[in-house]
Amino acid sequence: MNKKGTKGKLITIEGIEGVGKTSNVNFIAKYVQNAGYQVIVTREPGGTPVAEAIRGIILSDFDEQMYGETELLLLYAGRLQHVENVIKPALDKGQWVVCDRFTDATYAYQGAGRGVAIEKIDDLYRWTLGDFKPDWTILLDAPVDLAFERILKLRDLDRIEREKKGFFERIRNQYLVMAKRHPERYRVVDASQSLEDVQKVISDIMKEIIE
Amino acid sequence: MNKKGTKGKLITIEGIEGVGKTSNVNFIAKYVQNAGYQVIVTREPGGTPVAEAIRGIILSDFDEQMYGETELLLLYAGRLQHVENVIKPALDKGQWVVCDRFTDATYAYQGAGRGVAIEKIDDLYRWTLGDFKPDWTILLDAPVDLAFERILKLRDLDRIEREKKGFFERIRNQYLVMAKRHPERYRVVDASQSLEDVQKVISDIMKEIIE
Repeated sequence: MNKKGTKGKLITIEGIEGVGKTSNVNFIAKYVQNAGYQVIVTREPGGTPVAEAIRGIILSDFDEQMYGETELLLLYAGRLQHVENVIKPALDKGQWVVCDRFTDATYAYQGAGRGVAIEKIDDLYRWTLGDFKPDWTILLDAPVDLAFERILKLRDLDRIEREKKGFFERIRNQYLVMAKRHPERYRVVDASQSLEDVQKVISDIMKEIIE
Repeated sequence: MNKKGTKGKLITIEGIEGVGKTSNVNFIAKYVQNAGYQVIVTREPGGTPVAEAIRGIILSDFDEQMYGETELLLLYAGRLQHVENVIKPALDKGQWVVCDRFTDATYAYQGAGRGVAIEKIDDLYRWTLGDFKPDWTILLDAPVDLAFERILKLRDLDRIEREKKGFFERIRNQYLVMAKRHPERYRVVDASQSLEDVQKVISDIMKEIIE
């Protein structure tokens, strides 16, 4: 149980590759911890042994076309394990959960990116999770060109990342659309700024979230 | 294209472990071939590289509870790949497809066996495959005790097989219920007979199917 004896909150961090999700996930987790709450950091796809094995399949190269709907089914299989075995038990104990990508990433990547119909994603979401959703979502937003430059300095690209630039433009736009549609839980951060400036903005958001 | 220039047929073979599915799948495939059709033999879960990787996860032991719904999502992810990349292209070329387990196995194992609601399976079936279904289903039926005796002579049991006997009783009953509900495509074979007698019955069924 946390210091106030209440349920924990789920904060999800979203954005395309190269916007600095990993450093900021840890920054946010420390902020929550410093405010006196227990916190766990996790990620999707993945977050449990079964879900990490499924992540391995999603990111592998196969000598076979993988359909957007297949990716979606795999993502939701892992997500169900992650929510039931990690996220909900933590929230019930009063711990906060900071998750690197979650449900909105599916709308962005498989929906806008790969062209799976949004209604099909809605259906599978409800089938798997009912009305479970993040309490807060922090979107790190930056132009695709800038994000790509940052990734290529660090490592090679995986199967999904090797998709064309237009794929990532559609993903970025879908994130911005969702942020407008759900202003009650979304906070958008301009991630093209320096890390220091990004984290100043995040600190203000976290202050608001924790109150 | 087959000798009649028409679309192929999908024949699925169902039944619990130990009823002789593998030998009879091959017997049926040979029968179809001898009748002058091209035939492919495949299986579920699996049947494509992606689907076989997913099968690996389903049959693995993890230090984590795997939910019936998770199994269902994984099965349908593999099934989508299998149907789109193997079964439909073969049928379109006029080839017949003989498949060791298919959609009905999900109703039997995850539905009756693990207790996932039948309506949830219906929803996911439609989400993934629409109204695609087998042309014919041959159910090899035998008492659970007899089937278990046969398996244990051959090998150790995997995770799903180690479930209790009641689990397999529920599966067998669900298969029999489906056979009654879909008499237009189901043919039930008493698999407690000798292999020779079983294959006599199957030959009569195949005669009817091929006409």
